[in-house]
Amino acid sequence: MSRNLPSKQEFIDGILSGSRMLLSRAITLIESTKEAHQDLAQEIIEGCLPHSGQSVRIGVTGVPGVGKSTFIEAFGNHVIEEQNRKLAVLAVDPSSSKTRGSILGDKTRMETLANNPNAYIRPTPTSGSLGGVARSTRETITLCEAAGFDTILIETVGVGQSETAVHSMVDFFLLLMLAGAGDELQGIKRGIMEMADAIAINKADSGNEDAARRAMSEYKNALHLFPPTESGWIPKVTTCSAYHEKGIPEVWNIVDEYLRHTKAKGFFDQKRKQQAAYWLNESIQQELHAAFYNNPALKVKLEGYRQQVQDGEISSYKAAKDLIRLFLNHS
Amino acid sequence: MSRNLPSKQEFIDGILSGSRMLLSRAITLIESTKEAHQDLAQEIIEGCLPHSGQSVRIGVTGVPGVGKSTFIEAFGNHVIEEQNRKLAVLAVDPSSSKTRGSILGDKTRMETLANNPNAYIRPTPTSGSLGGVARSTRETITLCEAAGFDTILIETVGVGQSETAVHSMVDFFLLLMLAGAGDELQGIKRGIMEMADAIAINKADSGNEDAARRAMSEYKNALHLFPPTESGWIPKVTTCSAYHEKGIPEVWNIVDEYLRHTKAKGFFDQKRKQQAAYWLNESIQQELHAAFYNNPALKVKLEGYRQQVQDGEISSYKAAKDLIRLFLNHS
Repeated sequence: MSRNLPSKQEFIDGILSGSRMLLSRAITLIESTKEAHQDLAQEIIEGCLPHSGQSVRIGVTGVPGVGKSTFIEAFGNHVIEEQNRKLAVLAVDPSSSKTRGSILGDKTRMETLANNPNAYIRPTPTSGSLGGVARSTRETITLCEAAGFDTILIETVGVGQSETAVHSMVDFFLLLMLAGAGDELQGIKRGIMEMADAIAINKADSGNEDAARRAMSEYKNALHLFPPTESGWIPKVTTCSAYHEKGIPEVWNIVDEYLRHTKAKGFFDQKRKQQAAYWLNESIQQELHAAFYNNPALKVKLEGYRQQVQDGEISSYKAAKDLIRLFLNHS
Repeated sequence: MSRNLPSKQEFIDGILSGSRMLLSRAITLIESTKEAHQDLAQEIIEGCLPHSGQSVRIGVTGVPGVGKSTFIEAFGNHVIEEQNRKLAVLAVDPSSSKTRGSILGDKTRMETLANNPNAYIRPTPTSGSLGGVARSTRETITLCEAAGFDTILIETVGVGQSETAVHSMVDFFLLLMLAGAGDELQGIKRGIMEMADAIAINKADSGNEDAARRAMSEYKNALHLFPPTESGWIPKVTTCSAYHEKGIPEVWNIVDEYLRHTKAKGFFDQKRKQQAAYWLNESIQQELHAAFYNNPALKVKLEGYRQQVQDGEISSYKAAKDLIRLFLNHS
């Protein structure tokens, strides 16, 4: 990638004119660990920022087996063909570093979507911490928006910590569930249901329709137990069969209704601003951490202090105080 | 408290000679938000450090209603009267800032223990973040150990985030449960059972004995599903009735067996060293955070950058980079 690297301006112009090739190469720069790539990536992002933000960002979560890729394919096709939108599909799933990414495998299963010129599917980076993956996903959103994608779908597996990260970068959070299994059995982490703006009970087909309808009314009741959301939006519950492409327009209609509801009252922008402030604090924390732990003069000192703390010769608090003093004088 | 404040040396000598009054006053300094108190507290802690560490630190958790205070009283009396030990009871429960502390109220319920000269009960500080409370609890452990307490009991309510903090500062983690209610109903957070070195099913009395025994074998089976611990210790399950003081020596015997098991193989010291390293990193993070956010020159800049990030004029990553550069040049 390093040879024949386009210039910053070539990248920006290319992305703004919708070049998928340059978009992909820029995202690869974002995911690169090389400093030169990182620096160039940041310049591209800054150049794209003024042209970003005009999309709807949708998080989709659900445990493995809920039919996420089939749903994304059906939903994506509806959004593109019936709503005339352009769709980018990203993923946040650091654990997939072991399994080579959930979406990477799904790309073959999302055949019609992957071949649609109005869809762009980007697999999860195959390595990195949650913090790193979350950051590159947010930056990838910026580039995709600048490239003209007005619908961003961010997939995550609802069993780890990544949902909180995804929830903090999307406008709308959709939880896919199955009928006939308790939350417990579905492996959904506590707290995720409270994040959902809508729940879609998938696989409502093949004689499973009644169970799905019962589950729908159960979840509706359960959602009523949660405190009301800030915007006054009441999370919706619906059923669908992604495989048979049934109930999919209804899911989009819920998203659409949500957008009208939150935009009318200013909550849409307010939430984005809160998210921006949240990510600024997260970035500050990550940068502080990196500046401290990558400081070569401190590394030796830190090792010595760690030894002293472990031997009970100094309190961890005093050691931290001393180290921070050294850090601030030596940077 | 500020007038007639003993000197650092008077505090240290007093604590080492077992003065409960000076111990209490030193803990109050630890919990104080005044800088002068904090500085003195740190000097006292450093002076006590070489005389600390020689205790067994036991975490006790369980939801409200499980009988924690009754258990601590029965267990504490056994430890003091039958095992000839000296016991300090502390608590980590930041949420109790609203309810004025779980143990504060319990002190009257722990009447025999509170009046025992070999027991020292210290209520939770009534304010502060989890990080702050955790730190002051760790420092209080140091002082109590220096004052000659060889058994430290740290209580927490098993419903929040404080168990992780407590787990990272104790040698042994005991989970109190009730028979006849699923984990779900007992409100125990997922992951807590995996932290437990032992589970004691309390209230095994008044016709509840059979249910308690059934629960015991269920939990034993459940614990087998977890991956083995590093030390090879297999978590034990037992039943007790704290109210009728039954099964309490057996709980102590498990602690004792655990100590012999982990000390023989060096795991006891290894775990303490890991905990010390963990707390050093936590302290570094807290200090970095404080240095950054309390920097007066940065406060104004931060506000400006936050505005720009929220208006989409700059990426949070670039803003963080700039702010960290300013921070490191201005400190």
